[in-house]
Amino acid sequence: MVVCLKPINNLSPITRVHAATYQAASGAGAAAMAELEEQIKQVAAGDPVTVEKFQYQLALNLIPHVDVFTENGYTKEEMKMYHESRKIMHTDIEVSSTCVRVPVLRNHSEAIWVETEESLDLQQVRDALENAPGVTLKDDPANQVYPMPLGSASKDDIFVGRLRKDISNPKGITFWCVGDQIKKGAALNAVQIAEYMVEKGLV
Amino acid sequence: MVVCLKPINNLSPITRVHAATYQAASGAGAAAMAELEEQIKQVAAGDPVTVEKFQYQLALNLIPHVDVFTENGYTKEEMKMYHESRKIMHTDIEVSSTCVRVPVLRNHSEAIWVETEESLDLQQVRDALENAPGVTLKDDPANQVYPMPLGSASKDDIFVGRLRKDISNPKGITFWCVGDQIKKGAALNAVQIAEYMVEKGLV
Repeated sequence: MVVCLKPINNLSPITRVHAATYQAASGAGAAAMAELEEQIKQVAAGDPVTVEKFQYQLALNLIPHVDVFTENGYTKEEMKMYHESRKIMHTDIEVSSTCVRVPVLRNHSEAIWVETEESLDLQQVRDALENAPGVTLKDDPANQVYPMPLGSASKDDIFVGRLRKDISNPKGITFWCVGDQIKKGAALNAVQIAEYMVEKGLV
Repeated sequence: MVVCLKPINNLSPITRVHAATYQAASGAGAAAMAELEEQIKQVAAGDPVTVEKFQYQLALNLIPHVDVFTENGYTKEEMKMYHESRKIMHTDIEVSSTCVRVPVLRNHSEAIWVETEESLDLQQVRDALENAPGVTLKDDPANQVYPMPLGSASKDDIFVGRLRKDISNPKGITFWCVGDQIKKGAALNAVQIAEYMVEKGLV
């Protein structure tokens, strides 16, 4: 998420973010992915469904529960989105999210609303995202072009689409993004940080 | 969605809503549900997947495209949430939504953020929802109790859970809801309106 927020924040500081996530089984590990694949086969065969890695059956279902619950009613995953966004962006950005596990094997998706200090021109945001490193715009609704998790795995970039004004808020922008959290969230990030350190002569 | 907004609006007028939907195949009709079931079987068997009723494969995927796109970048379904909320609630409520088709057979789910004129106490909102006709609270995260689409079909009520303060906004509340849109969105509604008219002596 932060990869998409940074270029917008450079245009005008983001004060507030609302994010609904659609998180793939892969976020819970390889065994969890295998469980979803197994559940799909069991559902197809009309057999009883095995549930071990998730709280409930995930095939043909949605589970609004990723990681453990904390005292304020948010899960640890949701509070991580709050704290890590502030840490990475070095701002007082406020993030409220709802994290939901969905029956998808790979790639996390998110519906995001951002509020900025100044009202932004949509074309300006589009240009900023287009030129942002690590972001690929996939946004041509007339031709049914928007990011989807199926087929986006093992790509380095975060894909952004459905970019438009928040019609409920003159200072708001909303979009949909999809990214391979195994690469961008973990492995690829480590490689990119190492590359940056070498480039800057820090190691 | 409006069923859950009304009791909150009675406590303090809602000015703004952000909603991310997780819409089941059933919203596109019986043939679309059959297509998802067929796709599950094809995926399980490793066969090529048939795509006719949706824009892309829905099994193991998410499609951020429900109904046709309009000029402002929102779909007709998303603009319907804007206009119908205002019409049903008789207020100037502003709604920005992103509607997403998910690989679920029945029941639409939504992650919702509302902003009210006054800051509300969470317990007050909980009580209002608990006493609201047509709403059932299913909100005990410590015991993994929250609404999910699987197993909620053919119920009359809208199920609400994950109720908490919007940590990005002192005047905000956020929750997750699940409802059988075939019943609440269409057939049941017609019956309830007819009952109301009989009760009030309007027919």
